[in-house]
Amino acid sequence: MTLADRWLLPEGVDEALPEQAAKIEHLRRTLLNLHESWGYHLVIPPLLEYLDSLLIGAGSDLEIETFKVIDQLSGRLMGVRADFTSQVSRIDAHCLKGEGVQRLSYCGSVLRTMPAGLDGTRSPIQLGAELYGHGGLESDIEVLSLMLETLFSAGLSNLVLDLSHVNIVRGVLAACELTDEQESKLLELYNAKDLPELDAFVKGLSLTSDQAAWLVLLPRLCGGVEVLQTAVQGLGGISQSIDDALALLSSVSAVIERRYPAIGLHFDLSDLVSYSYHTGLLFAAYVPGHGNAIARGGRYNNIGEAFGRSRPATGFSTDVKALVALANVHVATPKTVLSPVCQSDALWAKVNALRAQGYRVIEALDDGCVDTVDFTLVFVDDAWQLVSAEQ
Amino acid sequence: MTLADRWLLPEGVDEALPEQAAKIEHLRRTLLNLHESWGYHLVIPPLLEYLDSLLIGAGSDLEIETFKVIDQLSGRLMGVRADFTSQVSRIDAHCLKGEGVQRLSYCGSVLRTMPAGLDGTRSPIQLGAELYGHGGLESDIEVLSLMLETLFSAGLSNLVLDLSHVNIVRGVLAACELTDEQESKLLELYNAKDLPELDAFVKGLSLTSDQAAWLVLLPRLCGGVEVLQTAVQGLGGISQSIDDALALLSSVSAVIERRYPAIGLHFDLSDLVSYSYHTGLLFAAYVPGHGNAIARGGRYNNIGEAFGRSRPATGFSTDVKALVALANVHVATPKTVLSPVCQSDALWAKVNALRAQGYRVIEALDDGCVDTVDFTLVFVDDAWQLVSAEQ
Repeated sequence: MTLADRWLLPEGVDEALPEQAAKIEHLRRTLLNLHESWGYHLVIPPLLEYLDSLLIGAGSDLEIETFKVIDQLSGRLMGVRADFTSQVSRIDAHCLKGEGVQRLSYCGSVLRTMPAGLDGTRSPIQLGAELYGHGGLESDIEVLSLMLETLFSAGLSNLVLDLSHVNIVRGVLAACELTDEQESKLLELYNAKDLPELDAFVKGLSLTSDQAAWLVLLPRLCGGVEVLQTAVQGLGGISQSIDDALALLSSVSAVIERRYPAIGLHFDLSDLVSYSYHTGLLFAAYVPGHGNAIARGGRYNNIGEAFGRSRPATGFSTDVKALVALANVHVATPKTVLSPVCQSDALWAKVNALRAQGYRVIEALDDGCVDTVDFTLVFVDDAWQLVSAEQ
Repeated sequence: MTLADRWLLPEGVDEALPEQAAKIEHLRRTLLNLHESWGYHLVIPPLLEYLDSLLIGAGSDLEIETFKVIDQLSGRLMGVRADFTSQVSRIDAHCLKGEGVQRLSYCGSVLRTMPAGLDGTRSPIQLGAELYGHGGLESDIEVLSLMLETLFSAGLSNLVLDLSHVNIVRGVLAACELTDEQESKLLELYNAKDLPELDAFVKGLSLTSDQAAWLVLLPRLCGGVEVLQTAVQGLGGISQSIDDALALLSSVSAVIERRYPAIGLHFDLSDLVSYSYHTGLLFAAYVPGHGNAIARGGRYNNIGEAFGRSRPATGFSTDVKALVALANVHVATPKTVLSPVCQSDALWAKVNALRAQGYRVIEALDDGCVDTVDFTLVFVDDAWQLVSAEQ
């Protein structure tokens, strides 16, 4: 292996040098403070778990994304987490016994076998929040609002918010009684947004004209808030579950529009991509010019059932590194003081007093200093004193 | 797999629930702030790297401790970091080009295949600092002082500081011209502190009486600062490298005694355990009642050579989770306000204003709230007002 090889990091794996690292740390603190001010308690799940626990309630996508290692102590398969949600659900289900509403937040590295997301990363710093124990509209709105406030606190604006609900596609498919094969072909066409192909495919199925109309309408329910009106006209009355989903979307979007008039609302009612464990409202935030969501979340009731405690749940997550790349994070740098090496007790005391006051004090070792210096410590009039470095 | 199985975490892997997580986050911030005030810049190396880069300059211990995974994109072997030192050295060697002194700090999760350290963990949160580009006494003292300040900031006291230097054992062994087999037997006996067995073993070697005396003396150079005087008498003059090492130990301990009179100093000049990449002064801090070090470090010049840039280096690391377990970390909790669900714009504005002021404001969803509440928000006299929850 040559030197150049040793310097290369694997694809989708990156490191943060001082300037970027300071921004990441600053944003991490800002956002965790925000979550705390909303009543969300930080938890720190382990980076590593038995694979069975880690993949509970998750779809096969997560299994493919998870790096596996053998536990030399037990011989069992373990996984390095690719996502926090099932871990935090386990903590709610198993470790925190309260029956009331539980609000939890987290921030940490995850690893994925394949590049994904905004910047094709395999090592995001995932930050998110989860709310357990409440299944109503109010918690959907709370978590969605917190996601938006998180993005605002990171300095993002011009956001587009995508809203959807898993029960719309599911309800329509249930009402059409397709075979599994037909269903997966249909979802594939929805995913590809291939409308001509879709229309031809639906025409070939033996369906009532109503059913055919629903299937053809679904991928066209894509656009601004007016989509909801079209959806009610075209899909209303098929089932209670669809009607409830449309009513929920309507209520949530009304509150979000009032709270955040600058946000662009977008609906795509046939969108089901990779939401295998979700059970209700889905949301994702986009910034202009980027095809991947910067944050996403939704309702995923009952994931904790596998851990013995079935609870309603909703949450969201984002990637702090992606936020730093997109937002203009400003970190105030402390005033920097260059001091001689502390050989006297008086200088040592002075240096530590300055550090405690918020100065960054660097001892001048004889090989020089790479930082920009604001002050130097000089012994004048029998005392160590700060002198501006510009003089 | 039963429910109980799913709840179990692998041995040596743990999670932090809200109370402990708040302490860890608080300590993380306190310690990174301390390091910043000393001029150490945070870097965030990746959790995952090609194995060859990760193990550069490290001993075989680290290879055994590192979890390996296959990169599906390149087919190459990658490792999840078990230690930060080689990563930070790579960053100094490759990414930061300045020729001057570079001070870097870090904090993050590492994974180890086998339990180790104070609490037998496999998933510590490692925090540390490294200083590159200076090979003298002053940087040894700086990093050692920063390690002690780190432990004080975490609230630890009654520390015992263990000092040693790799060139003493190495110098004596070199002067005795033993075979590899004899050398490893000897180090084994040093490690086990088996003095009678050692004396018998040395008697059986064909050595001068001076050489035999050095080998028998070494493991007895263990105790307080008076050990240094005995060492100078017994080992002085064997080689320049031994004389330099003893002089360095003497200078360093004099400064530390003056700066930190409450610290217990201890020397064990035959101690070489797991310091395979070190090249100079070694130090480790202990708290009473625990056999494993709470923090350790030392000089490891030239580890960056493999990355094309050979530089003097010294550093230390500790485990934030272990610190929290030992120290009495106090986290101030914000005042908690219970608010009705924000259905009016006025309440929504009031709630967010309180959050920005430092209150933790929780919306009362209908399933109750698990937190202790200090105030409730009540609509009185045409305005939302804080009312003490005790009334």
